[in-house]
Amino acid sequence: MPRIVYVNGEYVNEKDAKVSVFDRGFLFADGVYEVTTVLDGELIDNDAHLARLRRSLGELDMAEPCPPEKITEIQRALVQKNSLSEGLVYLQVTRGAADRDFAYPKDAEPTLVLFTQEKSIADNPTAKTGIAVITTPDIRWARRDIKTVGLLAPSMAKMEAVNAGADDAWMVDGDGFVTEGSSNNAYIITQDGAIVTRALSNAILHGITRRAVLALAQEADMRIEERKFTVSEAENAVEAFITSASSFVMPVVSIDGRQVGSGKPGPMTNRLRQLYIDMARKSARPAA
Amino acid sequence: MPRIVYVNGEYVNEKDAKVSVFDRGFLFADGVYEVTTVLDGELIDNDAHLARLRRSLGELDMAEPCPPEKITEIQRALVQKNSLSEGLVYLQVTRGAADRDFAYPKDAEPTLVLFTQEKSIADNPTAKTGIAVITTPDIRWARRDIKTVGLLAPSMAKMEAVNAGADDAWMVDGDGFVTEGSSNNAYIITQDGAIVTRALSNAILHGITRRAVLALAQEADMRIEERKFTVSEAENAVEAFITSASSFVMPVVSIDGRQVGSGKPGPMTNRLRQLYIDMARKSARPAA
Repeated sequence: MPRIVYVNGEYVNEKDAKVSVFDRGFLFADGVYEVTTVLDGELIDNDAHLARLRRSLGELDMAEPCPPEKITEIQRALVQKNSLSEGLVYLQVTRGAADRDFAYPKDAEPTLVLFTQEKSIADNPTAKTGIAVITTPDIRWARRDIKTVGLLAPSMAKMEAVNAGADDAWMVDGDGFVTEGSSNNAYIITQDGAIVTRALSNAILHGITRRAVLALAQEADMRIEERKFTVSEAENAVEAFITSASSFVMPVVSIDGRQVGSGKPGPMTNRLRQLYIDMARKSARPAA
Repeated sequence: MPRIVYVNGEYVNEKDAKVSVFDRGFLFADGVYEVTTVLDGELIDNDAHLARLRRSLGELDMAEPCPPEKITEIQRALVQKNSLSEGLVYLQVTRGAADRDFAYPKDAEPTLVLFTQEKSIADNPTAKTGIAVITTPDIRWARRDIKTVGLLAPSMAKMEAVNAGADDAWMVDGDGFVTEGSSNNAYIITQDGAIVTRALSNAILHGITRRAVLALAQEADMRIEERKFTVSEAENAVEAFITSASSFVMPVVSIDGRQVGSGKPGPMTNRLRQLYIDMARKSARPAA
């Protein structure tokens, strides 16, 4: 069944879902996006995604296409129209269409596009075996805290991983510290049981799932160190994992071909994944 | 008169010129582009642009949408259909439309879009007064030699200039050296008459106009130093200018509000501009 897609006020068949070639999202990567998980047909942690969207727009002096409540309405309508039980709702806002000019147009209307993707997230079988990552230099721009569609560098990193027979790439800054995965935040668990993940800055995306998982870890009395870690520290870790809206908590079992810890998903990672899934399912089914 | 635009095999009215929202140019900035000058209705230095396009595509493992001769045919058809005498032909190739995934799709057809823009280039009155630039940190990614549509950072730099009452921004690397302008290469002329411009590397775009202008400078026995220069060196220069397909050679008369040399377009810059225009006009009118 073809998807129904939202484009600037209209719900259309995916084959008719089009934007102008003059859209600045197409010509300049002048757009931002969010991906919200859908579990049991409900949006997970969506207010946090819409708050981050607003921040991204603000950082780029880009207009909000409509109030957040209206976006949520569209997200829910798409979930329903596409009978989506588990997967993602993708949303993108661009500065709109205007004749090509590096300077921002004065009178363009923002473009708003949303579509759904089916995906097994809570029951993703990969969580039982974990993923393999490679490391690669982080060649992205300096404002990775803004969730823009300028995603060619992480896309190249992902392909480098795929071509190497791995699942994803951890990007490494000029000083040898891991920044994050191609579309996820990166974590290790040290020999002495600390969860280590890079502190928030312009160097990484401020993950919505990251925030939720760290809050759950804290509640569970796990020790958290928000600091940089090197690739060799990661290789000596007992566990490693990533977080993102589309993977929740996903174990990393090898880095550059070297096994992490036992080479299997570790107990702390598995516990965090379960805590997150429980919380997500709970929020998806509000008390009657 | 509305423009005729080329989109994937069809010549359409600009209001009907659309691409799928699933186009990777829109979702991932997974596309490259070229801008060729049109003078007297003819394409200037176009083979060099198409050679660079091929290089950009190769660096990204992206398929060529069609042979270069076919692209030239489309460029010429657009110039004719839009009765373009002076201006630009813009062309963009993307990896095509596919369901959203950071990994490249296996079977997407590349997207090819071309459109024209009218612009006064050889007779641009601004060349008589010169432009003012500001300087700003270069926050772009590390592969600026690939001409991708990931142009948000230079677009932000351009807006910063506009908001400061200037015309453009020179971007400065972490070590204090100028890389280039928002969409042009940057040059200074030192007290002792040397033309200084950053050497080719991944840090800057390999300008087609840059190459032509340096060749003309060499023929005219001007001294060229391909090396980095700092902002303070630029402020002490006797002349400064930029080059690009859409500006040819354009004098820079102030940097961060401080006048360069006399504060007027300098003699060497004017000469280079004239040499370039003469060459371009000559190539536009092949010998009978």
